Amino acid sequence: MTTKATLNDLKSHLAINDDIGQAISLLGWDQNTYMPPGANAARGQIMATLSSLSHERLTDQRVGKWLKELEKAKLADSSTDGATVRQVRNAYDKATKIPASFIETWMKQRSKAQGVWTQARQKNDFALFAPELKKVFDLARQMADYIGYKDHPYDALHDGYEVGSTVAEVKKVFEPLRNETVELVKAIQSSKKKVEDKVLKQSYDEPLQEKFAVDVVKTFGYDFNHGRLDRTVHPFAQSITKYDVRITTRYSPNFVSMALFGTMHEAGHAMYEQGIADKYHRTPLGHSISLGIHESQSRMWENLVGRSKPFWTWAYPTLQKTFPKQLKKVSLEHFYSAINKVSPSFIRVEADEVTYNLHVMVRFELELALLENKLKIEDLPEAWNVKYQEYLGVTPKTDAEGCLQDVHWSFGLVGYFPTYTLGNIMSVQLFEAAKEAHPEIEKDMTQGKFDKLFSWLRQNVHEHGSRYLPQDLLKRATGSTLDSAPYIAYLNNKFRSLYGVEK
Amino acid sequence: MTTKATLNDLKSHLAINDDIGQAISLLGWDQNTYMPPGANAARGQIMATLSSLSHERLTDQRVGKWLKELEKAKLADSSTDGATVRQVRNAYDKATKIPASFIETWMKQRSKAQGVWTQARQKNDFALFAPELKKVFDLARQMADYIGYKDHPYDALHDGYEVGSTVAEVKKVFEPLRNETVELVKAIQSSKKKVEDKVLKQSYDEPLQEKFAVDVVKTFGYDFNHGRLDRTVHPFAQSITKYDVRITTRYSPNFVSMALFGTMHEAGHAMYEQGIADKYHRTPLGHSISLGIHESQSRMWENLVGRSKPFWTWAYPTLQKTFPKQLKKVSLEHFYSAINKVSPSFIRVEADEVTYNLHVMVRFELELALLENKLKIEDLPEAWNVKYQEYLGVTPKTDAEGCLQDVHWSFGLVGYFPTYTLGNIMSVQLFEAAKEAHPEIEKDMTQGKFDKLFSWLRQNVHEHGSRYLPQDLLKRATGSTLDSAPYIAYLNNKFRSLYGVEK
Repeated sequence: MTTKATLNDLKSHLAINDDIGQAISLLGWDQNTYMPPGANAARGQIMATLSSLSHERLTDQRVGKWLKELEKAKLADSSTDGATVRQVRNAYDKATKIPASFIETWMKQRSKAQGVWTQARQKNDFALFAPELKKVFDLARQMADYIGYKDHPYDALHDGYEVGSTVAEVKKVFEPLRNETVELVKAIQSSKKKVEDKVLKQSYDEPLQEKFAVDVVKTFGYDFNHGRLDRTVHPFAQSITKYDVRITTRYSPNFVSMALFGTMHEAGHAMYEQGIADKYHRTPLGHSISLGIHESQSRMWENLVGRSKPFWTWAYPTLQKTFPKQLKKVSLEHFYSAINKVSPSFIRVEADEVTYNLHVMVRFELELALLENKLKIEDLPEAWNVKYQEYLGVTPKTDAEGCLQDVHWSFGLVGYFPTYTLGNIMSVQLFEAAKEAHPEIEKDMTQGKFDKLFSWLRQNVHEHGSRYLPQDLLKRATGSTLDSAPYIAYLNNKFRSLYGVEK
Repeated sequence: MTTKATLNDLKSHLAINDDIGQAISLLGWDQNTYMPPGANAARGQIMATLSSLSHERLTDQRVGKWLKELEKAKLADSSTDGATVRQVRNAYDKATKIPASFIETWMKQRSKAQGVWTQARQKNDFALFAPELKKVFDLARQMADYIGYKDHPYDALHDGYEVGSTVAEVKKVFEPLRNETVELVKAIQSSKKKVEDKVLKQSYDEPLQEKFAVDVVKTFGYDFNHGRLDRTVHPFAQSITKYDVRITTRYSPNFVSMALFGTMHEAGHAMYEQGIADKYHRTPLGHSISLGIHESQSRMWENLVGRSKPFWTWAYPTLQKTFPKQLKKVSLEHFYSAINKVSPSFIRVEADEVTYNLHVMVRFELELALLENKLKIEDLPEAWNVKYQEYLGVTPKTDAEGCLQDVHWSFGLVGYFPTYTLGNIMSVQLFEAAKEAHPEIEKDMTQGKFDKLFSWLRQNVHEHGSRYLPQDLLKRATGSTLDSAPYIAYLNNKFRSLYGVEK
């Protein structure tokens, strides 16, 4: 068979899996939005069956045969066909290297650990959770062995979320960021300038919040003809297909930031998925490439745009008109500083732009130590609190507010946390490149125009799906490899100016 | 292999198809409720893939082999295992007898005909639709030949909606019903007593309509822990699994009947699906047995309960309290007669309880004549109008109001219409049997209690899923075969009394 024919066979075979995956996505979206509560068990069964059909198809021995044939042809990784083979090989290896019996044990342990974690957090009882967490990390180590790695077992796991990224690389970019951030936080805390954010915590009518948020993300470029916004307790973005990418948000009647920035964040994720090229639909390249790239999009719209002065120069008068009672007498300056208040706290999901990465780095360093067996599970709470004191200057009063706060580890997500900060780092690298290509981007924002930034992201990030690995995508788009220097400069620039603590 | 082992293999194999079918159901529900408009084409692809996976699995040659083995064992049709084999044989034969190439032609023609029908109805242009309708009926004849039949090609098609039912049987029960109904309509029209229904056509607040309707169907027994109510242009009930059966309704701000009786109707369908025995979940018996039985449930709650005097004796004071401005001065008698007004019209979906079946019978007789080639497509509009004049005493002014009004034929649904009236007929047979078992049912209704009727339906209809064929289910539940006499008696009794035209 010709290479082309083999490739077509492979692609047709796997297009079915795309369809199955899309059905699973909808089942998941529905489970988190409108599914009646009594349907939960039956829903799990449907999703398990579809996942297993998809797994069977992916691990079909013909796929292995086709891959070998195609790899003999030595297609350039930089070609579309080469990238297709690379993506399928990656998925095929992950699916075939791990024995089915291990997957079953893993799934059961995840499910059990999550149940116990929920209780442990409620009761603030780390000892209850510890044995389950130990099992999760034991299994994670085993999984890393099955998958294989060159330098570090963590790499095998982390690669599943950020393909091609390694511990060594993460450490290299995290270290200067951590040092600079810790210093920045200290400078901010010693500043005489105090930021007051009470204005955000007034009564804000929910339908008006929704209308404002919808108008904003529409203007950004989120396409409601291929999307929709619903309400959930835990906001998320879900791609069914690139033609149907939905977001959810939550509203606080007494805090305007929650829905506002949450909606921008999820719309950032969704615009990425909506922007994948039509030609990649139902192919192995028709998916986002990594969580880090994903997060670079959500954080760019939430922070680099959504918490910027140029954006609010345009948007604030409308917000004031929407909420005259609350904001008529609040100046743009005041509002801008309020939404950018820096305040070290215990809880990651409520953290400000500066301290957020410290939360992530605590988790990264601890999960690494746990995986390496350098830290014992039972010593986690103390190690956690020590790091919080060191980096953020605060110590959680309880484990529920400390090492029990996140669901991730209970769910087996080891190697996932760094992608949040990788996203932040890349968001600034990409934003700077976009501004270099279109210097008018920030001025445009003051007039409510986002088309140049949006188009640049479409052409340089979104449309490529998984055509390029994250590092390659970044290099193509920015001319640079992963580098935290621009992000550090951005943080210093924005927040030292805001708090009057120039270096 | 033992019979038991073979049966287990067959059931495990097909349980996967149940899961796939449930995913398709959710995809369909979502398509009709919350799917963004731009997702339509991609959604079609996902559903087509899942349908094809399910079809492959059903027509797997092992299924044929298992069936032959099981049929050798001659399991009694009245046993659960025998019924399982019967249901799978039926599905397997239908799926294997029709060539894939024909199915493709059929699907394409349905899709095309539906598009043309939409235009033709809009433009009131039957000539535009005629060639497509001719192709549909040509293909329907071919399909009947593929499926096979003993007496009449119509039986092959009709059996797909009402398993075991035949033209001969339908004619037998329709004929007396038609004659009696035509006579009843004439009597009502010549009555001096006129019914006024203006009170229904006032301004009714939609959220209050919804609350009232929800309270009513909850009281009937519709379980919101395994269901939900949404708004759509075309109301429907959709079972994802028996643990998740959803209904939709539509509201008219100026007509209280639409949402009220529509919600009762869909809840009737849904309670049937919710009531199928747990033990049949993910087995060939875990499905409703026929459209006629389904309709018997929806029409029972909508009409025999929902438009009855005992029900409103209980519910009317609450409705008056909900809408005091509109109903405070309207007596129960007046309201009861208004919701039961008989008024021959052109449009089936707006028809009252008495004339509804005449609409159905016109369609049944005409589709039969078309299939038999006794009526030419081009003569359909005239034949339609002649029958409307004869049965209902009215002649549609346009084909859009006449033979172009329903989507069914364009979509290839030939043999479907009679199930509406079969449902009405069976609803009364079942209701009478329930009252015989629990004579207090009607008195209970006056106090808002429906538990005895509900339980009787659970035990005699719902829980059996497709364990019994419709005729057998009816016989077990009522002691009688299909018979329109009780329904005729019910209509005469209720409406002759209402209009003061005793026989």
